[in-house]
Amino acid sequence: MLYDFRSFVNPGAYAFGKGTFNHLGELVERRHENSDSWTVFIVDDYFKGKSLIERLPKKDNDLLIWIDTVDEPKTTLVNQYRDEILAHNTKLPSVIVGIGGGTTMDYAKSVGLMVTNPGDSAEYQGLDLIKNKGIYTICIPTISGTGAEVSMTAVLSGPEKKLGIKCDYTIPNEIIFDPELLATVPDEQRFYTGMDCYIHNIESLSGTWVSTLGQVFAEKSVELCREVFLDSNLSRIDADEKLMAASLTGGNSITYSQVGVCHALSYGLSHVLGVHHGVGNCVAFNQLEEYYPEGYKEFKKMQEVQGVAIPTGITANCTEEQFDQMVETAWALEHMWDNAFGKEWRNHITKAKIKELFRRM
Amino acid sequence: MLYDFRSFVNPGAYAFGKGTFNHLGELVERRHENSDSWTVFIVDDYFKGKSLIERLPKKDNDLLIWIDTVDEPKTTLVNQYRDEILAHNTKLPSVIVGIGGGTTMDYAKSVGLMVTNPGDSAEYQGLDLIKNKGIYTICIPTISGTGAEVSMTAVLSGPEKKLGIKCDYTIPNEIIFDPELLATVPDEQRFYTGMDCYIHNIESLSGTWVSTLGQVFAEKSVELCREVFLDSNLSRIDADEKLMAASLTGGNSITYSQVGVCHALSYGLSHVLGVHHGVGNCVAFNQLEEYYPEGYKEFKKMQEVQGVAIPTGITANCTEEQFDQMVETAWALEHMWDNAFGKEWRNHITKAKIKELFRRM
Repeated sequence: MLYDFRSFVNPGAYAFGKGTFNHLGELVERRHENSDSWTVFIVDDYFKGKSLIERLPKKDNDLLIWIDTVDEPKTTLVNQYRDEILAHNTKLPSVIVGIGGGTTMDYAKSVGLMVTNPGDSAEYQGLDLIKNKGIYTICIPTISGTGAEVSMTAVLSGPEKKLGIKCDYTIPNEIIFDPELLATVPDEQRFYTGMDCYIHNIESLSGTWVSTLGQVFAEKSVELCREVFLDSNLSRIDADEKLMAASLTGGNSITYSQVGVCHALSYGLSHVLGVHHGVGNCVAFNQLEEYYPEGYKEFKKMQEVQGVAIPTGITANCTEEQFDQMVETAWALEHMWDNAFGKEWRNHITKAKIKELFRRM
Repeated sequence: MLYDFRSFVNPGAYAFGKGTFNHLGELVERRHENSDSWTVFIVDDYFKGKSLIERLPKKDNDLLIWIDTVDEPKTTLVNQYRDEILAHNTKLPSVIVGIGGGTTMDYAKSVGLMVTNPGDSAEYQGLDLIKNKGIYTICIPTISGTGAEVSMTAVLSGPEKKLGIKCDYTIPNEIIFDPELLATVPDEQRFYTGMDCYIHNIESLSGTWVSTLGQVFAEKSVELCREVFLDSNLSRIDADEKLMAASLTGGNSITYSQVGVCHALSYGLSHVLGVHHGVGNCVAFNQLEEYYPEGYKEFKKMQEVQGVAIPTGITANCTEEQFDQMVETAWALEHMWDNAFGKEWRNHITKAKIKELFRRM
């Protein structure tokens, strides 16, 4: 186990249900101390020109930062956004609002911390390296499954590694779960991100690090994933509300457990090939029947019911050097292997085996 | 619904699992700013002379308050403990630690608030009447099921009513869930308190106020109650760990829903006859087959498996005046009736019917 003992900080507050996004203005206002208090909105650029933007409670002195989500979040961009915020006003912002998927929320979480912690964000990749608490952060998922909205990790790709900033302060202070915001997510993307949730539950439940509380949250989250992706009788809005609850409980579960083989491999795909995290998980899990036989079977069934075909051949043109880089990225995630196989994990997996798995993807 | 919109504050942090109580000293120390910072321990007097007390990280300038749990928590005693704390030191305490069941934890929660809010605690019975946040409060359940450790309500009996102090600040800042602390709870008491959890889940799930998130937590909590009280293959310590998780998720569920008929009646029994909350719930639920047929059936099965006989005839010697008082206490809990039957609840239940139910107990 990574922690001998830890008291895990919970996300600050949840506003959950249809229409809760309409109350964002009140929640922001509550955190403004003075008339010159201001807010940073960090928003997925998918929403450029969309009606959601007209609903933002944005004032003249506020700052809006658009996030290009083609790439996974990078430490260099975190630094850049932080500089932009510091240049915008001599006073620090009172609130940071992150609106989007895992990438956008991870930017909001880490930018909120970097505003109050000096230096390069890459220096903080790891556990408990952050010294000062950040700006009050409200996360608003517009796609569900990553668990980023409730997790104590903001995953970042740095110059050297893909590794999260992880500490008590990385957890958002408030989360608005409004299933209406999921209405326009394309089916395929919804599936990939939903599977991120399903897969981390499976990794949590079959891992050696699982605790009773991690198990409780993961079991419920798996049930909800089943309802969402196997039960065709649910309306889209009802399914989306359940998917938000699945993401919440799945994210909670990871706090009290750990991910495993699939996430380690998926980090390799993201870091070297720039594959999006949800897609990377699906591509990797598609080759992991031997490690997660039951979860794999259900995953295939969900693909079938949802009519989604997982990409194949994405490593077909990789060089030997790229394969080696992916292997090294995955291999370095010792806590994930330790969770999957126990302390003696090096007896259960080799770099050669990992490379073979990458070749099959 | 009581709330048109609310962003619900979560409990601050969870330390969950066997042996976590050993870390209480660290958690307290973390909240001490100076060498003269001090702590109040509010402890169920069941632990007088027990080994748990030797394990308390109590220093010379700390204050230990013993709680007699024969009666449900009273506003008069909250005021008295508050005065004792203020008299103990010119400086406010940095931490309040509550160790015990729902009664003791409700004292810890409300005393922690009354130290920073002037006047009589009875003036704060209701929703959002507290003005200032309280002292950092750590709750440590030694019996599970009430959900008091994670709830935003500290239920108090005042001169006029039994009603909770309920606000964002009533939620503990930190909770230590150590199942080893449940080892010495007598089977019967464990059952009554566990049934508090089971019953509020049933009331939540069948209520008109239930939200998706309330449902998610209650469903998982019910599953855990089944494992604990119907599966005889679990060891006591494993069952106790699950019971702690059931209490946590059940308590979370009530945040996003509401209790119903049984709790309203049980409040009447407690307020007029001084019946303990868990026992009162069981006595009341035992007469509620017509309102909760499925839950009732399972409740009877749990009684059978656990070999517990619910007391009967406890109202046999009540005067007409006492019955009327019980009816009035229950009737005043409009939010519970509203949850049970909807806005038009007065069309579904009468004072005469409530009195008849009390007569049967």
